[in-house]
Amino acid sequence: MQRSIHFLTLLVLGISTAQAGSSSVPPAPNGIEFPTDYSDWRVISTSHRIDNKTMRVILGNDTAIEAARAGKTNPWPDGAVIGKIVWKQTEAADWKTAIAPGKFVHAEFMFKDSKKWAANGTGWGWARWVGMDQKPFGTDANFSQACITCHAPVKDRDWVFTTPAMLPVMHK
Amino acid sequence: MQRSIHFLTLLVLGISTAQAGSSSVPPAPNGIEFPTDYSDWRVISTSHRIDNKTMRVILGNDTAIEAARAGKTNPWPDGAVIGKIVWKQTEAADWKTAIAPGKFVHAEFMFKDSKKWAANGTGWGWARWVGMDQKPFGTDANFSQACITCHAPVKDRDWVFTTPAMLPVMHK
Repeated sequence: MQRSIHFLTLLVLGISTAQAGSSSVPPAPNGIEFPTDYSDWRVISTSHRIDNKTMRVILGNDTAIEAARAGKTNPWPDGAVIGKIVWKQTEAADWKTAIAPGKFVHAEFMFKDSKKWAANGTGWGWARWVGMDQKPFGTDANFSQACITCHAPVKDRDWVFTTPAMLPVMHK
Repeated sequence: MQRSIHFLTLLVLGISTAQAGSSSVPPAPNGIEFPTDYSDWRVISTSHRIDNKTMRVILGNDTAIEAARAGKTNPWPDGAVIGKIVWKQTEAADWKTAIAPGKFVHAEFMFKDSKKWAANGTGWGWARWVGMDQKPFGTDANFSQACITCHAPVKDRDWVFTTPAMLPVMHK
């Protein structure tokens, strides 16, 4: 029993350390901290933009995944964070008619907090980190106007382009 | 302290229950059990097959993700499970030049166990569940010959088509 409690303590300490995740990546110019654990988040969808030849995976933190699977995405709940990982497209190594991710471009995020981000008119905080060295995008806090302008066509979808991909786990 | 141990016990019981995951989905004809938690796995890559117009997300269990991020994928380690979720492609709702997942097609899996699956010549167990009702693919245990034939061009890549997508977390 002593041994098992010791194991449990280690387990929980491990989880805490992973979540605290001190990062060497600087925050976005609007103060949003880099979400160090985003590559461990679960999948919401994927997309292939044939105009700029990029492949994307759209991920969500736990709050976002719960909302996506419950179909409660308009509006998304406060606390939801959606991340989009973007790569230049390339041809798959051994299947000539498949497109796959090539060079890493950036990871970009929307943080839903309807009070904190009310002033920008969207209820979302916006952030992007560029390239394998994850350099914050933008030079001052106004950079997010570029994000918002691009997302304006989907303001009636709570500013989110992505429709969660259908999964059997969503089948009621 | 009493309270904290109680919490830890609940936490661990919760994890065990989630992993045991009793499933109403029948096993594959070769006896492989349906991996009930696959939609909670992390991402290895994505692909777009323009020949049959499908979008895919490739996921891995913890062993597979660890191997992918460490670049140790030829061979993949025993215990690795790779899952591919496949959807028919559709046009994104509000971005005409983006392709997105439409109707769910199937989820298919490779289970690495070089001893258990030595007899089929690949060291992998193969399984697929089709449609939103997750019907097992194949009528008898020989169904996996169809999987193996298709994957033969990548036998020197340990039978795996997918190259793990580059992520900063993989940047050493």
